[in-house]
Amino acid sequence: MNANTKGLFLLIKSEYDIQFRLIQPTPMVALLHLHPSVESTLAVIDGIENTDRLKVEQIGPNIEAPVEIPIDDYLDSFGNRCSRFVAPAGIVRLSGTNIIVSDGYPELQGFNLPAIPVEELPADTLQFLLASRYCEVDRFGGIAQDLFGHLGTGWGLAAAIRDWVHEKVVFDYKMARATKTAMDVFTERIGVCRDYQHLAVTLSRCMNIPARYVTGYIGDIRVPFSGPGDFSAWYQVWLGGRWWDMDARHNYPRIGRILMATGRDAADVAITTSFGRAELTRFYVETYEIDADLRPVPLPPKPGPPITAPTT
Amino acid sequence: MNANTKGLFLLIKSEYDIQFRLIQPTPMVALLHLHPSVESTLAVIDGIENTDRLKVEQIGPNIEAPVEIPIDDYLDSFGNRCSRFVAPAGIVRLSGTNIIVSDGYPELQGFNLPAIPVEELPADTLQFLLASRYCEVDRFGGIAQDLFGHLGTGWGLAAAIRDWVHEKVVFDYKMARATKTAMDVFTERIGVCRDYQHLAVTLSRCMNIPARYVTGYIGDIRVPFSGPGDFSAWYQVWLGGRWWDMDARHNYPRIGRILMATGRDAADVAITTSFGRAELTRFYVETYEIDADLRPVPLPPKPGPPITAPTT
Amino acid sequence: MNANTKGLFLLIKSEYDIQFRLIQPTPMVALLHLHPSVESTLAVIDGIENTDRLKVEQIGPNIEAPVEIPIDDYLDSFGNRCSRFVAPAGIVRLSGTNIIVSDGYPELQGFNLPAIPVEELPADTLQFLLASRYCEVDRFGGIAQDLFGHLGTGWGLAAAIRDWVHEKVVFDYKMARATKTAMDVFTERIGVCRDYQHLAVTLSRCMNIPARYVTGYIGDIRVPFSGPGDFSAWYQVWLGGRWWDMDARHNYPRIGRILMATGRDAADVAITTSFGRAELTRFYVETYEIDADLRPVPLPPKPGPPITAPTT
Amino acid sequence: MNANTKGLFLLIKSEYDIQFRLIQPTPMVALLHLHPSVESTLAVIDGIENTDRLKVEQIGPNIEAPVEIPIDDYLDSFGNRCSRFVAPAGIVRLSGTNIIVSDGYPELQGFNLPAIPVEELPADTLQFLLASRYCEVDRFGGIAQDLFGHLGTGWGLAAAIRDWVHEKVVFDYKMARATKTAMDVFTERIGVCRDYQHLAVTLSRCMNIPARYVTGYIGDIRVPFSGPGDFSAWYQVWLGGRWWDMDARHNYPRIGRILMATGRDAADVAITTSFGRAELTRFYVETYEIDADLRPVPLPPKPGPPITAPTT
Repeated sequence: MNANTKGLFLLIKSEYDIQFRLIQPTPMVALLHLHPSVESTLAVIDGIENTDRLKVEQIGPNIEAPVEIPIDDYLDSFGNRCSRFVAPAGIVRLSGTNIIVSDGYPELQGFNLPAIPVEELPADTLQFLLASRYCEVDRFGGIAQDLFGHLGTGWGLAAAIRDWVHEKVVFDYKMARATKTAMDVFTERIGVCRDYQHLAVTLSRCMNIPARYVTGYIGDIRVPFSGPGDFSAWYQVWLGGRWWDMDARHNYPRIGRILMATGRDAADVAITTSFGRAELTRFYVETYEIDADLRPVPLPPKPGPPITAPTT
Repeated sequence: MNANTKGLFLLIKSEYDIQFRLIQPTPMVALLHLHPSVESTLAVIDGIENTDRLKVEQIGPNIEAPVEIPIDDYLDSFGNRCSRFVAPAGIVRLSGTNIIVSDGYPELQGFNLPAIPVEELPADTLQFLLASRYCEVDRFGGIAQDLFGHLGTGWGLAAAIRDWVHEKVVFDYKMARATKTAMDVFTERIGVCRDYQHLAVTLSRCMNIPARYVTGYIGDIRVPFSGPGDFSAWYQVWLGGRWWDMDARHNYPRIGRILMATGRDAADVAITTSFGRAELTRFYVETYEIDADLRPVPLPPKPGPPITAPTT
Repeated sequence: MNANTKGLFLLIKSEYDIQFRLIQPTPMVALLHLHPSVESTLAVIDGIENTDRLKVEQIGPNIEAPVEIPIDDYLDSFGNRCSRFVAPAGIVRLSGTNIIVSDGYPELQGFNLPAIPVEELPADTLQFLLASRYCEVDRFGGIAQDLFGHLGTGWGLAAAIRDWVHEKVVFDYKMARATKTAMDVFTERIGVCRDYQHLAVTLSRCMNIPARYVTGYIGDIRVPFSGPGDFSAWYQVWLGGRWWDMDARHNYPRIGRILMATGRDAADVAITTSFGRAELTRFYVETYEIDADLRPVPLPPKPGPPITAPTT
Repeated sequence: MNANTKGLFLLIKSEYDIQFRLIQPTPMVALLHLHPSVESTLAVIDGIENTDRLKVEQIGPNIEAPVEIPIDDYLDSFGNRCSRFVAPAGIVRLSGTNIIVSDGYPELQGFNLPAIPVEELPADTLQFLLASRYCEVDRFGGIAQDLFGHLGTGWGLAAAIRDWVHEKVVFDYKMARATKTAMDVFTERIGVCRDYQHLAVTLSRCMNIPARYVTGYIGDIRVPFSGPGDFSAWYQVWLGGRWWDMDARHNYPRIGRILMATGRDAADVAITTSFGRAELTRFYVETYEIDADLRPVPLPPKPGPPITAPTT
């Protein structure tokens, strides 16, 4: 173990195994790497290759041993590390593992940060004020003014938007759909994590706060078990000279958000994109804390019913 | 005059004067420059500053002489040259002029170019296969297959899409609106140049042809007068290792398309974006051929009724 | 003149002349009659046939004298008097005139009427709580609760909805379009009279107030000239055992609303519906007060600038 | 048993039990009756009350014996028999049973029926040419012409539309949603039975064929078991002077369609509408053939794999 796991620092392991059945060779793009900005948190561990490598293999049917498929990596215009390859017909597995060192703190909060006038925003944040596929900024102008026009500025406003979305939208895994936009979320008031963030991103942009969509890992780290793992989505707002994590779905500070990709919305950062028909046959993602011996750290129990002292 | 105006070469002058009334200081972004890739075509003319400069001035009310406003330029993620400034309250004028040397040919046609498999596309063209604000690629999959699934590949397919849109959509200046998407165009079948291109771009992407939206100047160059000038929109498809101009509105080769900006759709390349209320009070754009003495070249007459020889 | 024009009573004349160019015989349906419930207000005037008759005539091209086209009348499921006919190819004119006796009062206001529980609503009002083409009640539930959930009940709530729409939407004749729904109005905040009413109707239904869309005449009656005439749209809410006129566009009591048709929204009560291509070539509608000699009553002048007494 | 069950005639029993949990007394409307036009098919059976009665009862919590809730019936503007009542807080059950006599034939087919010109359509069918909430006729004009403009007329055209929808849309129970319109179905190409019918209804209307939406029972009658029961949706087109059943989902003639309600689309004929929050806690519907002793008739087995004669 390297020294940087001492003190507050903790180790978080992520792993995924995603499989598709393809009827013909199919070009694919995957955004399954850590974001370049967090590659430096990869733990250095003796005897373990911990390079966040994506492995793509043909594993069936009638394959004796998995056949690895060559991959090309590139950076997209948002700076995300993307992988492209031609998946052969049959069963194809995309898998990977990484262990990062977390500082053990929930994400920082920028309480009281003032608004940044548009004219002082860095040029490369301006694109995150514009309308995009799932964020119809051009249709939400009046709505955003009605809801938030008198609700402060800066961090306070950004947090008010996040909290409003969190309160109004109900989570329902079954109500996900690929074409759901912020306007759909606003009217239907139900959805999955991506939907919460699209609505919050859109409203933030309407109020001139640059906001970008994020995909990454959020495991159950030092919180009770919450169900099977998945990639997660949150968003970031630009205030006080940096991007701040916000999450209209899991609306409380979390330990161990791990950034994979950022973009204008989910259209930019799909985990996988297939240029042809691809049937998803397996989807496994888990993120969990490990100890210095690389064994999973047990999660705290769910809070039980309150215990009252006997009254005699 | 410099030598490069000889032979087939011709000079094209563009000029614009756009004015807004603002009730308070308002940050603005303008995409009013030539695209960096065509700056080299700016004519070198003795005694004339021909630098494609954008001038922003406060000209009213109660202003004795125009007051020039400072501008910052930056490149956006698509490589467009953008200008930002804070427009003061009052009447503000954005104006500029440029003269470029055109080779005098209509845009090239890539007849017979074959399709490029997705896996062979350059990484930076892949974003132009994705859904964007006004191009709902994710909603047009079945529709595009129905219409074009059996209509060839490569240039032939790209041209079939362009021609279909050209034939099905009716031009009506009054039917423009800011939120109109490709799906709206597909159902309403009416719109302005931007609408034609959004639909064609979307269908092209569905068929795995990278397509990007373009803004620029198209003047009446060696064609009869067609009405007051405006900025125009067209689009480009990636085939055979380069981008090719296509135009589902003015669906024939033109002399003198002058590229200003490219993006995924109109959301990326708005001519001006105001972060606050701005009332457009004047909008003048003209593009026309000039001769070596910098005087406008008269346009050919509109074709009159056919003249028949007298029969005796 | 009959006696009922004395006292407060006044006479209102409406007339229309609508023309189409048709390339082939085309079935049409027109809702150009007074609503059966107001036929009793037709003035009885000696020597004048005042029967609200619709005349459909072929008037061109190359027609010496107008040729009248036979019409069938029927009542639709909402009780509106509809006319159907097959318009011949050429130029076709739909025209009519009627004179009604108005009581001279602006429409009644139901101030302080309490809400009616759904279970006490008459069965035939329940359909006016449902979603319809341009009134997406099923998408506005959360929005209506956010905006009006704490804003009273009954008349107060109904008026709050009407006033909110009136305040938020900007009139612009150029922003009309046939497919514009209440959600489009809510997001774009701009439109024509039909758009105001669709949004108000939708929000009223969401709050369990039956609301139906109305077409009719609203002339400049004892108010200054407001521009060329047109058919108008308003809406009605059910409270206190009857329907009450409301108008989110002309949001003040008016003399001389004349009911033509009611329905769930504009899809039910289009003035004319053509089953085939029809080019509108003339559209004239006027409604104005006439005196006992049937001459137009001059309108009051527009208020001029305030006149201040000279200060010496 | 009465005589009319002999010969080809067969008995079909339908039964339902639908339960809601309500937090407060809630007005509801239910369309759970047979359509008045098919009430005459209710079997007359000695000793059995077979009146298609809807029973609404409060059954929990803490209820010793079910408490029956009074119901008011009314006919809506489409002629459907509707029931309204105020469901009390707690658990409420809607249940009923009916036995009808079917002629044992699959629904009739109107092969070769010619188109009916709009001008010859009965007045009360014209409303089924108009746009409605889930059938955006006004957005499908060009699309319908592209797809079906050259595909015959009358029954042939109607069947071509039905077949096209059947072929293009994929059934997926999980992809149902309350706000899904014909345009959503056209773009997403996936849905449940109501979605198939909405798209087919819309396209039929665009081609001037009156089409209305139907709810009813379709059990597994003399066909293999296809899964748990549900209410079903189909649609009807007007040709040759009557309405004909069509079904873009179960696109083959069926024995035993039992009509419950018709309307312009699903907005008109929701099985239940709650004016307040209602949590569905049980949903049971079954329709099956019974014999003269009122015992269920076993279904034919699903076809097994083909059996080949042994080759020796």
